[in-house]
Amino acid sequence: MSFLHIDSESPFSLDNLPFGVFSTKEKPYIRAGVAVGRHVIDLSALHRHGVFQGRLSDHASVFDSTSLNAFAALGRPFNQSYRLFVRNLLLADNPVLRDNEELRQDAIYDLDKVQMHLPMVIGDYTDFYAGRNHAYNVGVLFRGPENALQPNYLHLPVGYHGRASSVQISGQPVYRPNGQICPGPAPILSPCRKLDMELEIAAFICTPNPQGAPIPIQKASDHIFGFVLMNDWSARDIQAWEYVPLGPFNSKNFATTITPWVVLADAMEPFRVKAPDAPTGLLPYLTQDCNGAYDIDLTVDLRISGETHRLSRSNALHLCFSFEQMIAHHTITGCPLKTGDLFGSGTISGKEKDSLGSLLEMTLNGKEEMRLGSVSRTFLEDHDEVILNGAAGASGARVGFGPCIGRILPAKSL
Amino acid sequence: MSFLHIDSESPFSLDNLPFGVFSTKEKPYIRAGVAVGRHVIDLSALHRHGVFQGRLSDHASVFDSTSLNAFAALGRPFNQSYRLFVRNLLLADNPVLRDNEELRQDAIYDLDKVQMHLPMVIGDYTDFYAGRNHAYNVGVLFRGPENALQPNYLHLPVGYHGRASSVQISGQPVYRPNGQICPGPAPILSPCRKLDMELEIAAFICTPNPQGAPIPIQKASDHIFGFVLMNDWSARDIQAWEYVPLGPFNSKNFATTITPWVVLADAMEPFRVKAPDAPTGLLPYLTQDCNGAYDIDLTVDLRISGETHRLSRSNALHLCFSFEQMIAHHTITGCPLKTGDLFGSGTISGKEKDSLGSLLEMTLNGKEEMRLGSVSRTFLEDHDEVILNGAAGASGARVGFGPCIGRILPAKSL
Repeated sequence: MSFLHIDSESPFSLDNLPFGVFSTKEKPYIRAGVAVGRHVIDLSALHRHGVFQGRLSDHASVFDSTSLNAFAALGRPFNQSYRLFVRNLLLADNPVLRDNEELRQDAIYDLDKVQMHLPMVIGDYTDFYAGRNHAYNVGVLFRGPENALQPNYLHLPVGYHGRASSVQISGQPVYRPNGQICPGPAPILSPCRKLDMELEIAAFICTPNPQGAPIPIQKASDHIFGFVLMNDWSARDIQAWEYVPLGPFNSKNFATTITPWVVLADAMEPFRVKAPDAPTGLLPYLTQDCNGAYDIDLTVDLRISGETHRLSRSNALHLCFSFEQMIAHHTITGCPLKTGDLFGSGTISGKEKDSLGSLLEMTLNGKEEMRLGSVSRTFLEDHDEVILNGAAGASGARVGFGPCIGRILPAKSL
Repeated sequence: MSFLHIDSESPFSLDNLPFGVFSTKEKPYIRAGVAVGRHVIDLSALHRHGVFQGRLSDHASVFDSTSLNAFAALGRPFNQSYRLFVRNLLLADNPVLRDNEELRQDAIYDLDKVQMHLPMVIGDYTDFYAGRNHAYNVGVLFRGPENALQPNYLHLPVGYHGRASSVQISGQPVYRPNGQICPGPAPILSPCRKLDMELEIAAFICTPNPQGAPIPIQKASDHIFGFVLMNDWSARDIQAWEYVPLGPFNSKNFATTITPWVVLADAMEPFRVKAPDAPTGLLPYLTQDCNGAYDIDLTVDLRISGETHRLSRSNALHLCFSFEQMIAHHTITGCPLKTGDLFGSGTISGKEKDSLGSLLEMTLNGKEEMRLGSVSRTFLEDHDEVILNGAAGASGARVGFGPCIGRILPAKSL
């Protein structure tokens, strides 16, 4: 299909073409690119060489930015037009890039030779709680099976405002946070003893809405720029002590890791499915007349001393509220969304023991140790590396995120 | 003292000189200014006329920005130098501005003729809960006097991440939010029926800290740019239904109103006092060896059909955690703060019935009506106007914020 080699198992097939921002050793400024197979196409270079035509040329200076915000702000139809233009450029029978050696030199990089950067300037980050099995499992742990789901849970997508400044990209280390915990009669300051991960997907907002103007659910998908994988690192002992009555704060504000390549909403559209656990009888402002979920296979691996252990295999269809429902609910009060805002899905657990999205659930809050070859774990230890992966689609046409990796470094001494 | 007339009751005395960003009809671009009495000094014009000298001249292009972020990022000592330079410029015996008619024409505006704008680009907004009487009163309402304060309350400054995008300035209207409430057996979508205000002060961050590097409490004051008054509008019925288990979300994300003039931290420094209700025996990372609170008189007025009713008279010394403690706690995990981040104090209530900072407390969650002349109120009604004021210092040397005003407009029909 393409004149570039694309491995059939690559998450970055021609059907995907995710967008990101990168720099290189020789050209250390940040600009936009598209990932395909093991390559990166430099969109800023394409623009410089006059490859974009017509209205796509008029706006192509957005690719000279250090983030994708200006590109996203063009809106979803424009974003899709650029994606399809790049797709066409990569086809085996298109000579424009294929036969222009100077352009190839300037515009094609090896994926593993570029330095990725945070793709968006994130104004606000909201984390939802739409993984129904996760919410149930956590509820059972803390309140028992009778009251596992709170009364509001099946009526609205529960969420909270997260910390935008601590969002980082795959590969950046995660320092074990220090914080206030209360394991005995009085609180102490200590490195977190229950450091956890959370398997999530997340959406970026493209088109903003003005304050006071809710986004109706029928139009919510126009506001979704694209998706990334997300690990919402969580300090369970800090959380347990701090969270009443205003919710998680320090337990979530030290780091959240996302993948640097944004899979455009249109690339994920073919993988829409009906969420099997979606609540029924929702109020009209949350009632969606199309499939709201995505069939995206997700995995969690834990790398300890060079050995990789599969912890979980889950799927995004376990989210019982859609991103459209999150947008409609978030803005029903008139709350303004801005280009670059990030929506986390909440932890995505399946129903089985080997499909859970957090160590909290896998080890019943540390009560049951997991055997992993010659070692065991309840929560994360220093130097552990968590690797999330996720992709939709069949071999040869995968639409995936690339790995979301974070390695735990020891707490800094205070 | 100044060649400009400054009313002795003005919150903008020579001892204050707060910074903001404004535009005018004739020059509609946004630039930085300083408020003094009923005047605004255009800092961008001062720079254009070459008034700043030496290193103050080198950096004065920050005043051409549409926000104060670049100015704040210079750091607190620089900010203070500019404030003192402007103060000197305004003294009765300084001819530089006084006797330069062209400069005066260009650089002095009437306060009521300029259009103010949001002073900072706010990356993240955190709202704390440091008003001990408020936390106690709310605790009594929902859990009774025995368990009014949660176990963590006197050990750490409880807070949550708020919604940065919905922060607006005094004078902008507040639409009554629509939202999901549950007054009966099943939830409904309705205009909020329990719309409340919250009397707070708030701090802006100047110097950022890198991810993974906590700010020690002894250095926290270096990171405080300045202060504003804040009304953290709250939808109590939406909050009651949504807030378990992750805290307030839609109930707080429709609007938060702040004053447009930022009182620099150094201008507020003379009004430091020891908080009478400060908890003792804190962990060392929260132990502050100087006075943490501020003696700032605060009032809440409600304007109904042209008549103004005094609802409350409170004081910022009722905050039992200082902004330095909030900063030390917020970053103890390594959470990065950025220039422009906003820290709300939490609602500031006194101990008396006429010193409360929210209608929730004044009316016992709507159970006790307030008589206000010929009308009565439990929560806010459409067209009600809430006016907060706050100032420290004596007559002739007041350091205040100017009014923080928000008028309720009817909910938009969906």
